[in-house]
Amino acid sequence: MKTVLVITCHPDTRSLTGALRDHTVVTLTRLGHAVEQSDLHAMRWKATVDHDDFPAEEPAARLQPGAASRRATLGGTLTPDVQVEQAKLLRADAIVLHFPLWWFAMPAMLKGWFDRVFSNGFGYGIMPAAGTPGQASLRYGEGRLAGKRALICVTTGGLPSHFSERGINGPLESLLFPLTHGTLWYAGIDVLPLHGIFGTNRLKPDEFTPVARAWDTRLAGLFSDAPIAWRAQNGGDYDDGLCLREGLGGGTTGFDLHRR
Amino acid sequence: MKTVLVITCHPDTRSLTGALRDHTVVTLTRLGHAVEQSDLHAMRWKATVDHDDFPAEEPAARLQPGAASRRATLGGTLTPDVQVEQAKLLRADAIVLHFPLWWFAMPAMLKGWFDRVFSNGFGYGIMPAAGTPGQASLRYGEGRLAGKRALICVTTGGLPSHFSERGINGPLESLLFPLTHGTLWYAGIDVLPLHGIFGTNRLKPDEFTPVARAWDTRLAGLFSDAPIAWRAQNGGDYDDGLCLREGLGGGTTGFDLHRR
Repeated sequence: MKTVLVITCHPDTRSLTGALRDHTVVTLTRLGHAVEQSDLHAMRWKATVDHDDFPAEEPAARLQPGAASRRATLGGTLTPDVQVEQAKLLRADAIVLHFPLWWFAMPAMLKGWFDRVFSNGFGYGIMPAAGTPGQASLRYGEGRLAGKRALICVTTGGLPSHFSERGINGPLESLLFPLTHGTLWYAGIDVLPLHGIFGTNRLKPDEFTPVARAWDTRLAGLFSDAPIAWRAQNGGDYDDGLCLREGLGGGTTGFDLHRR
Repeated sequence: MKTVLVITCHPDTRSLTGALRDHTVVTLTRLGHAVEQSDLHAMRWKATVDHDDFPAEEPAARLQPGAASRRATLGGTLTPDVQVEQAKLLRADAIVLHFPLWWFAMPAMLKGWFDRVFSNGFGYGIMPAAGTPGQASLRYGEGRLAGKRALICVTTGGLPSHFSERGINGPLESLLFPLTHGTLWYAGIDVLPLHGIFGTNRLKPDEFTPVARAWDTRLAGLFSDAPIAWRAQNGGDYDDGLCLREGLGGGTTGFDLHRR
């Protein structure tokens, strides 16, 4: 049995996102997994990083968010809401994310979940063992969350062609690279290929079943499908300036350079 | 005289972001422009879209954010904080954005400014004049904010090589494509090339002056520098599926396909 944390961000659970989330919980349970949840709107999740996040800091002192985050993480003084989410992440073997695409990115509340929960010393800033040469901190394939998996289900009113290789919006995979590569993989998490659900404004009630069936296939592969083969920072593919070494990535461009 | 709206998102004004913002206000004033400001943390900006944003909706009714946003925009029932920001935008000839790069994107609070202020009927969903053939709504180069300009100043602790064409983080221009193309240009705004300030964790106090001087050059070009030459949706470059027409974009790939 695996433990899966399902993170949902939509202001109304009677939405497609909410229906998919409910379906996810049923399917994962049927597959024998234990399910934990973070429904950000139900939790009234605080999206913003500010002084209130660091009660151990001097109230009048200048707030440097990265440094304060590190002191709070290592000192155990992160706020309880963040500590609860970090504990859920540590218990989870995988996370599933449900959200609508707003302005070609996560809704602010979900972005704020990462801004606050992936704290310095937890989601990044993990130092290698003493005496390890090379990089300053473990990231891109390594870190405290390494070995866990993530599967993203994102809904949009746009059509597949709008998000295709030559589509006006740009490919969904590229638009969400800051999340899949720059956040999840940065923190060490293996990311499965995205699951995009398109044209949701035109979806009719009787079309939910095929949509849910297709999604079930992805849930069934949560622990067996191949993750995106992002290159590890410490895998020898990058030089000291963290540029991809010459001779690698031939035939590809852009973000795809960072796939093996 | 032009009017410039300076939007800042950092939890402490004694930060580099705050110092740059102060410098921006001085420089723009010296250049003869009128300056308005939105300092999101000072305003305690509400980042999250939820039921409270739509007081005219039935409290128990299912919230469909896009539809509710449209009714509120057209009906004049958006919350006062959003209406104030929209009025600032309408008065502005240009906007300047100051923010730190968090997880390769905007901080949640700033994302939430766009999620809420760029409402349906204001930032998107602008219908063409009756009888106009073609697209459903004006976007990507057209819309209510067309003709305005945007200049983005973003700070990061990462080094330029990490954000270079083969750098591990990906190019800054590509990471922020959802903002520059998918949000600002989508709403009709001309976007100037990004201004990234790198290695900010290692920046020494006596290095602020050259950083500010370089930024001043960008501010001086706010109304004269060439914007990024994104293709307009309605300019004939896209087919009915909103894919770039065959024969266009030769020699480029990825997001650059959408530059003329």
